Amino acid sequence: MSRKKRILVIGGSAAGPKAAAKARRIDNDAEVVILQKDPDLSMASCGYPYYVGGYFDDRNMLLSTPTGVTRDPKFYLNAKDIDARTNTEVTSIDRDNKTVSFRNLLTKETGELAYDKLIIATGATPRMPPVPGVELDGITTLQSMQDADFLRKVRDEKCIKKAVVIGGGLIGIETCEALQLAGIELTVIELLPQLLTFLDWELAKLVETHVKSKNVNVITGNGIAEFLGENGKLSGVKLANGTELPCELAIVAIGVIPNVRLARNASLTIGETGGIEVNEFMQTSDPDIYAVGDCVEVLNRLTGKKVLAPYGDLANLQGRVAGENAASQNIVTFPGTFQTGICKIFDFAAGSTGLSESVAKKLGYEDIITVINASPDKPGFMEGMLLVTKLIAERNTGKILGAQCVGPGNVSKQIAQWAMAIQGGLTVEDLVNSDLPYAPPFSLAIDHFIATAHIMQNKMKGRLNGISSMQVHEKLKDNGNSFFLDVRGPDEYEEMRLGIGETLIPLGALRSRLGELPEDKAKEIICFCKISLRGYEAAIVLEANGWKNVKVMEGGIMAWPYPREK
Amino acid sequence: MSRKKRILVIGGSAAGPKAAAKARRIDNDAEVVILQKDPDLSMASCGYPYYVGGYFDDRNMLLSTPTGVTRDPKFYLNAKDIDARTNTEVTSIDRDNKTVSFRNLLTKETGELAYDKLIIATGATPRMPPVPGVELDGITTLQSMQDADFLRKVRDEKCIKKAVVIGGGLIGIETCEALQLAGIELTVIELLPQLLTFLDWELAKLVETHVKSKNVNVITGNGIAEFLGENGKLSGVKLANGTELPCELAIVAIGVIPNVRLARNASLTIGETGGIEVNEFMQTSDPDIYAVGDCVEVLNRLTGKKVLAPYGDLANLQGRVAGENAASQNIVTFPGTFQTGICKIFDFAAGSTGLSESVAKKLGYEDIITVINASPDKPGFMEGMLLVTKLIAERNTGKILGAQCVGPGNVSKQIAQWAMAIQGGLTVEDLVNSDLPYAPPFSLAIDHFIATAHIMQNKMKGRLNGISSMQVHEKLKDNGNSFFLDVRGPDEYEEMRLGIGETLIPLGALRSRLGELPEDKAKEIICFCKISLRGYEAAIVLEANGWKNVKVMEGGIMAWPYPREK
Repeated sequence: MSRKKRILVIGGSAAGPKAAAKARRIDNDAEVVILQKDPDLSMASCGYPYYVGGYFDDRNMLLSTPTGVTRDPKFYLNAKDIDARTNTEVTSIDRDNKTVSFRNLLTKETGELAYDKLIIATGATPRMPPVPGVELDGITTLQSMQDADFLRKVRDEKCIKKAVVIGGGLIGIETCEALQLAGIELTVIELLPQLLTFLDWELAKLVETHVKSKNVNVITGNGIAEFLGENGKLSGVKLANGTELPCELAIVAIGVIPNVRLARNASLTIGETGGIEVNEFMQTSDPDIYAVGDCVEVLNRLTGKKVLAPYGDLANLQGRVAGENAASQNIVTFPGTFQTGICKIFDFAAGSTGLSESVAKKLGYEDIITVINASPDKPGFMEGMLLVTKLIAERNTGKILGAQCVGPGNVSKQIAQWAMAIQGGLTVEDLVNSDLPYAPPFSLAIDHFIATAHIMQNKMKGRLNGISSMQVHEKLKDNGNSFFLDVRGPDEYEEMRLGIGETLIPLGALRSRLGELPEDKAKEIICFCKISLRGYEAAIVLEANGWKNVKVMEGGIMAWPYPREK
Repeated sequence: MSRKKRILVIGGSAAGPKAAAKARRIDNDAEVVILQKDPDLSMASCGYPYYVGGYFDDRNMLLSTPTGVTRDPKFYLNAKDIDARTNTEVTSIDRDNKTVSFRNLLTKETGELAYDKLIIATGATPRMPPVPGVELDGITTLQSMQDADFLRKVRDEKCIKKAVVIGGGLIGIETCEALQLAGIELTVIELLPQLLTFLDWELAKLVETHVKSKNVNVITGNGIAEFLGENGKLSGVKLANGTELPCELAIVAIGVIPNVRLARNASLTIGETGGIEVNEFMQTSDPDIYAVGDCVEVLNRLTGKKVLAPYGDLANLQGRVAGENAASQNIVTFPGTFQTGICKIFDFAAGSTGLSESVAKKLGYEDIITVINASPDKPGFMEGMLLVTKLIAERNTGKILGAQCVGPGNVSKQIAQWAMAIQGGLTVEDLVNSDLPYAPPFSLAIDHFIATAHIMQNKMKGRLNGISSMQVHEKLKDNGNSFFLDVRGPDEYEEMRLGIGETLIPLGALRSRLGELPEDKAKEIICFCKISLRGYEAAIVLEANGWKNVKVMEGGIMAWPYPREK
């Protein structure tokens, strides 16, 4: 009698266990085996920063089911009939004989295991900067359970005074929050000119201002040149511009590299992005081998190009697809990603779906139109909080290409709405009359999402001549060529103002004070208010009164990414 | 010289001011006039319950812009160049001469005003029960600013001990929360067998349990027969079944009737629903007259049928469309509604978009499939809270017809996602791989929304043989014909259980304890757990071991709408 069909999964973090569980449910007769290099299984790795930050204290919550059962080999065996072997590293794949070789990292025993279908879920490894001193004690990442344990210990022991986070991406910023909560003096260093590169510059700058308001130092446009040490211990970092920052701890978060060594050694096709190439069935160049999670490249559904998208949610979805296909045949597909993401940043969140303006331009999208909208998420009487959204659309079709949102308001809901709009292939015209759930505890009567579509529609119809804060900032150099008109009330002006040489005329007084505006009707007038809704109304009044070159600064003062006078 | 084009708006609550403001922005030369019967303008009427409940104390927040400027006639004149006249009731429309007659309710002066385009936004009036005693002192609605003032006074003065809310719909439930917060002993009476009829029964029942847990009495399936009084003052209500409930205050919230008297007297077409008939341009049967807001009927975008949908968000969107068309020509359209709605109920929210199962069935949809999913909105370590969703789809196409969600979790985001999915015409197959914003502070790795699509997909593929809690409850009468299998852990069972004669075998022990299951492999076995994820895995194990009639109770114990033993 022939042996049972064996589905072998390499990797037990996120995508692997999901694939194994799905395979088990589809084929109850198969033998399902997970070989996991780490001592733990199915770790909630996206939760590490919150454990380090002390949002919760029970480490086991990262490793257990919602009812508190640890997802260990015994759990996998009893609850799922899956043979999960931890501390077991796969050393090679023999495609001709359909076997893998493995080694137990504790016992050093080696062995071979045959497979009928193989699922590779080897994940990714943190990128390390190629600079001297990287081997010093006190340099870590936040990628593994061990890293989380180490940083949690740092938090609890309160011995470390100064730390540097290398990399201002998603993980860097999350780590930064975690350690700031521990009372550590922090500096974030980012080689690029901005934090969070999934955002366009002007929104990233709002995040940066928020991070700085939490007493975290932020250095952008400057990379690390060297880790400095004393007696094998980290004592500081030296930046490319020569600055030296003393610190006892450095957390490296400059991205991850797909773990493709096993796949490459087995001559599976590796894509140009550096991830394992898979088709829509999550199948590699070998029909008997699937690959899922951070080690693969996936299709960007908007651009049709392959990208690396190491996100926990996609890993789970891919695992589900590969598990089913490996257990039966290629029947379900994974369509790819819109690269939707979000992160918490102290009291802010920042999220994005689809393309940013800068990515769209890099990819050659030429006829795009963007708009920035700032408004609260709920009415003031329900303690609404600010949202700043940038929307990117195709100018000729109005098709939504991307949206990004930052602020203390409900960013997650906004991004979810945009993600679904993009998935549905909807246009600006479709969205101006969307029917969303409205009640004051949850949104404005015209939700921020719909209002953003309204502003974009006005811009596309030529009714709103928008100008970005960055363009306005450029104009400050051409002293006197533009007239800056703040149309808020005097109290608001007293409380907060740009201080760029603006003139204050409240909207309600504008019609009777037109004489205070430039006589030259061709002169550029740039209107704004707190969020630029009144700025828009002011522009209409001015245009109706003969001024020919009136613009509205999008997002108003709330979206101004530069320092303000007040 | 001919006079300016005049756009006349009847009604100044929500849709009217929006239409007027949009008309002004589109045509800066036109004269825009609002005639408003009430003393206030542009009231945030959806906020009344929260003012009454004491979420905020500044009454002016309901009547002012975000920066605190009251939206009074002076504001409309100065900021928007709109002539808004309050306390001014329109008494008739003369379509032949294109004039309206009006009367000032304070000065009693009357007058006439010509229009080029007329926009009717007369709103709706609360329905009153046709029973004796309705004129007694102490009976109110929560529809106007005056009502809100009255009920806020009730809250602040703390003189009233007992109140009855007639009607368990959205406004009734919101009012109920407001008054409960004021320490008033409350009873809600609903003629139908359930609260919140936009939900299906089993979800409404979960809301009812929550309302009752706040010490509010709920009486369903019983209407009011009479208001009882002493000396002209309300002393109680008598129900259809004879019950008498003493109370000093009754709030009637049994729905609203569109105010169509003016339109009907002017021989404009009134639809079968009782609302003013309008086309996609929000234009009535008279091309010079538009109508918007609670007084019109609108298209249900799923069914193609006209419905009454008196929601504040739709009123604003319709106002924007009518304002633009009246100011220029018919260029923009309002596509209709998916009847998306939400309300806060103490620590719960309840929302819905599209069709409920019961409405779909009434409308003749025959081949539909439903599923219930219960799961937290976020990981346990981020204090995730429960969501219970019911999804309704077309069986043959997988097209989403409707979704409803209740619970303490982030219901608003869930419903927004479903609303966008329905608007995009997406199917279950599309949604199983949606790319939503994931990070632990905001969602599970597989969001509740996607998990719901997964369960539906499993059901559609025949992998999950679901059974509703209601069907299970029916089976309790056929004593012994079904075997109820709870597959949770002993601790969980000790803490909470149904007590319907179930057998407890934890999932992890199931494979080794199959001997405890019915010998008859044809016997019906109904599996469940807290949310029925483990229940689903148990069913797969049992089927693999030869049992032929295994079902999973959808939503598990968390979606069980009946009393539990524990």
